[in-house]
Amino acid sequence: MNEDNSIFVGEKPFMNYVTGVVIQFTTQGATEVVVKARGKFISRAVDIVEVVRHRFLQEQVRIKDISISSEEFKNKEGKDVRVSAIDITLEKI
Amino acid sequence: MNEDNSIFVGEKPFMNYVTGVVIQFTTQGATEVVVKARGKFISRAVDIVEVVRHRFLQEQVRIKDISISSEEFKNKEGKDVRVSAIDITLEKI
Repeated sequence: MNEDNSIFVGEKPFMNYVTGVVIQFTTQGATEVVVKARGKFISRAVDIVEVVRHRFLQEQVRIKDISISSEEFKNKEGKDVRVSAIDITLEKI
Repeated sequence: MNEDNSIFVGEKPFMNYVTGVVIQFTTQGATEVVVKARGKFISRAVDIVEVVRHRFLQEQVRIKDISISSEEFKNKEGKDVRVSAIDITLEKI
Protein backbone atom coordinates (compact mmCIF):
# COMPACT_ATOMS: atom_id res chain seq x y z
CA MET A 1 0.00 0.00 0.00
CA ASN A 2 1.34 3.44 -0.82
CA GLU A 3 0.57 6.86 0.63
CA ASP A 4 -1.99 7.56 -2.08
CA ASN A 5 -4.31 5.21 -0.27
CA SER A 6 -4.56 7.56 2.70
CA ILE A 7 -7.42 10.01 3.16
CA PHE A 8 -6.65 12.82 5.59
CA VAL A 9 -9.84 14.20 7.15
CA GLY A 10 -10.18 17.96 7.60
CA GLU A 11 -12.69 20.75 7.05
CA LYS A 12 -13.94 19.89 3.56
CA PRO A 13 -17.57 18.79 3.11
CA PHE A 14 -18.28 15.42 4.70
CA MET A 15 -19.23 13.70 1.45
CA ASN A 16 -15.91 14.63 -0.19
CA TYR A 17 -14.15 12.21 2.14
CA VAL A 18 -16.77 9.49 1.81
CA THR A 19 -16.54 9.71 -1.98
CA GLY A 20 -12.75 9.79 -1.76
CA VAL A 21 -12.67 6.48 0.09
CA VAL A 22 -15.25 4.87 -2.20
CA ILE A 23 -13.34 5.91 -5.32
CA GLN A 24 -10.09 4.48 -3.95
CA PHE A 25 -11.75 1.08 -3.58
CA THR A 26 -13.88 1.10 -6.71
CA THR A 27 -12.10 2.90 -9.55
CA GLN A 28 -8.54 3.02 -8.16
CA GLY A 29 -8.46 -0.67 -7.29
CA ALA A 30 -7.16 -0.15 -3.76
CA THR A 31 -7.26 -3.17 -1.45
CA GLU A 32 -6.72 -0.99 1.63
CA VAL A 33 -7.51 2.63 2.46
CA VAL A 34 -6.38 4.43 5.63
CA VAL A 35 -8.62 7.20 6.96
CA LYS A 36 -6.52 9.55 9.12
CA ALA A 37 -7.47 12.47 11.34
CA ARG A 38 -6.15 14.60 14.17
CA GLY A 39 -7.76 16.45 17.07
CA LYS A 40 -11.40 17.41 16.65
CA PHE A 41 -11.55 15.73 13.24
CA ILE A 42 -11.24 12.28 14.82
CA SER A 43 -15.03 12.08 15.38
CA ARG A 44 -15.52 12.95 11.73
CA ALA A 45 -13.14 10.25 10.55
CA VAL A 46 -15.15 7.67 12.49
CA ASP A 47 -18.40 8.98 10.95
CA ILE A 48 -16.90 8.76 7.47
CA VAL A 49 -15.76 5.16 7.95
CA GLU A 50 -19.14 4.18 9.37
CA VAL A 51 -21.02 5.69 6.42
CA VAL A 52 -18.66 4.04 3.92
CA ARG A 53 -18.91 0.58 5.41
CA HIS A 54 -22.62 0.60 6.28
CA ARG A 55 -24.08 2.55 3.38
CA PHE A 56 -21.80 2.79 0.33
CA LEU A 57 -19.63 -0.32 0.43
CA GLN A 58 -21.75 -2.60 2.58
CA GLU A 59 -20.43 -6.19 2.62
CA GLN A 60 -17.50 -5.00 0.49
CA VAL A 61 -15.09 -3.52 3.03
CA ARG A 62 -14.32 -4.11 6.68
CA ILE A 63 -12.16 -2.53 9.36
CA LYS A 64 -8.71 -4.08 9.42
CA ASP A 65 -7.16 -1.96 12.13
CA ILE A 66 -7.72 1.12 14.30
CA SER A 67 -4.83 2.82 16.03
CA ILE A 68 -4.59 6.00 18.06
CA SER A 69 -1.49 8.02 18.82
CA SER A 70 -0.24 11.37 20.09
CA GLU A 71 1.86 13.94 18.32
CA GLU A 72 3.76 16.37 20.52
CA PHE A 73 5.17 19.63 19.22
CA LYS A 74 5.89 23.19 20.32
CA ASN A 75 3.36 25.85 19.37
CA LYS A 76 4.19 29.40 18.28
CA GLU A 77 4.71 30.43 21.90
CA GLY A 78 7.17 27.57 22.46
CA LYS A 79 4.70 25.70 24.64
CA ASP A 80 4.45 21.89 24.40
CA VAL A 81 1.20 20.85 22.75
CA ARG A 82 -0.20 17.35 22.39
CA VAL A 83 -2.61 16.39 19.64
CA SER A 84 -4.29 13.00 19.33
CA ALA A 85 -4.56 11.19 16.03
CA ILE A 86 -6.40 8.18 14.64
CA ASP A 87 -5.67 5.85 11.73
CA ILE A 88 -8.52 3.62 10.60
CA THR A 89 -7.54 1.03 7.99
CA LEU A 90 -10.31 -0.34 5.79
CA GLU A 91 -9.76 -3.41 3.63
CA LYS A 92 -11.66 -5.05 0.79
CA ILE A 93 -13.50 -8.22 1.84
CA MET B 1 -15.21 -7.14 33.76
CA ASN B 2 -18.49 -5.56 34.77
CA GLU B 3 -20.23 -2.41 33.60
CA ASP B 4 -18.65 -0.40 36.44
CA ASN B 5 -15.40 -0.46 34.50
CA SER B 6 -16.86 1.69 31.72
CA ILE B 7 -16.34 5.44 31.53
CA PHE B 8 -18.85 7.20 29.30
CA VAL B 9 -17.41 10.46 27.95
CA GLY B 10 -19.63 13.53 27.76
CA GLU B 11 -19.60 17.22 28.60
CA LYS B 12 -17.98 17.15 32.04
CA PRO B 13 -14.52 18.70 32.51
CA PHE B 14 -11.81 16.76 30.70
CA MET B 15 -9.87 15.84 33.83
CA ASN B 16 -12.93 14.24 35.44
CA TYR B 17 -12.71 11.45 32.89
CA VAL B 18 -8.94 11.13 33.10
CA THR B 19 -9.16 10.86 36.88
CA GLY B 20 -12.07 8.44 36.55
CA VAL B 21 -9.98 6.04 34.47
CA VAL B 22 -6.91 6.38 36.70
CA ILE B 23 -8.95 5.66 39.84
CA GLN B 24 -10.48 2.54 38.27
CA PHE B 25 -7.02 1.13 37.71
CA THR B 26 -5.33 2.32 40.88
CA THR B 27 -7.78 2.28 43.79
CA GLN B 28 -10.57 0.12 42.33
CA GLY B 29 -8.23 -2.62 41.18
CA ALA B 30 -9.64 -2.84 37.66
CA THR B 31 -7.63 -4.86 35.15
CA GLU B 32 -9.55 -3.35 32.22
CA VAL B 33 -11.39 -0.07 31.68
CA VAL B 34 -13.50 0.76 28.64
CA VAL B 35 -13.69 4.41 27.57
CA LYS B 36 -16.87 4.94 25.53
CA ALA B 37 -18.15 7.91 23.56
CA ARG B 38 -20.64 8.82 20.87
CA GLY B 39 -20.71 11.49 18.15
CA LYS B 40 -18.61 14.58 18.74
CA PHE B 41 -17.29 13.18 22.03
CA ILE B 42 -15.29 10.51 20.18
CA SER B 43 -12.34 12.90 19.71
CA ARG B 44 -12.45 13.61 23.42
CA ALA B 45 -12.40 9.94 24.34
CA VAL B 46 -9.23 9.49 22.27
CA ASP B 47 -7.63 12.49 24.00
CA ILE B 48 -8.51 11.08 27.42
CA VAL B 49 -7.01 7.69 26.62
CA GLU B 50 -3.86 9.28 25.24
CA VAL B 51 -3.37 11.44 28.33
CA VAL B 52 -3.97 8.47 30.64
CA ARG B 53 -1.55 6.15 28.91
CA HIS B 54 1.20 8.69 28.14
CA ARG B 55 1.09 10.90 31.22
CA PHE B 56 -0.68 9.34 34.21
CA LEU B 57 -0.27 5.59 33.80
CA GLN B 58 2.77 5.43 31.57
CA GLU B 59 4.13 1.87 31.22
CA GLN B 60 1.20 0.68 33.36
CA VAL B 61 -1.64 0.38 30.87
CA ARG B 62 -1.94 -0.30 27.15
CA ILE B 63 -4.67 -0.34 24.57
CA LYS B 64 -6.23 -3.77 24.30
CA ASP B 65 -8.88 -3.01 21.70
CA ILE B 66 -10.56 -0.19 19.79
CA SER B 67 -13.91 -0.69 18.11
CA ILE B 68 -16.24 1.68 16.31
CA SER B 69 -19.91 1.19 15.59
CA SER B 70 -23.08 2.96 14.55
CA GLU B 71 -26.31 3.38 16.43
CA GLU B 72 -29.41 4.11 14.36
CA PHE B 73 -32.56 5.50 15.86
CA LYS B 74 -35.51 7.76 15.05
CA ASN B 75 -35.33 11.36 16.25
CA LYS B 76 -38.27 13.38 17.60
CA GLU B 77 -39.45 14.09 14.05
CA GLY B 78 -39.42 10.36 13.22
CA LYS B 79 -36.40 10.75 10.96
CA ASP B 80 -33.69 8.06 10.89
CA VAL B 81 -30.51 9.30 12.54
CA ARG B 82 -27.14 7.56 12.69
CA VAL B 83 -24.61 8.25 15.43
CA SER B 84 -21.10 6.79 15.54
CA ALA B 85 -19.63 5.37 18.71
CA ILE B 86 -16.22 4.23 19.92
CA ASP B 87 -15.15 1.80 22.64
CA ILE B 88 -11.51 1.94 23.68
CA THR B 89 -10.45 -0.84 26.05
CA LEU B 90 -7.39 -0.19 28.22
CA GLU B 91 -5.75 -3.01 30.13
CA LYS B 92 -3.17 -3.20 32.88
CA ILE B 93 0.27 -4.27 31.65
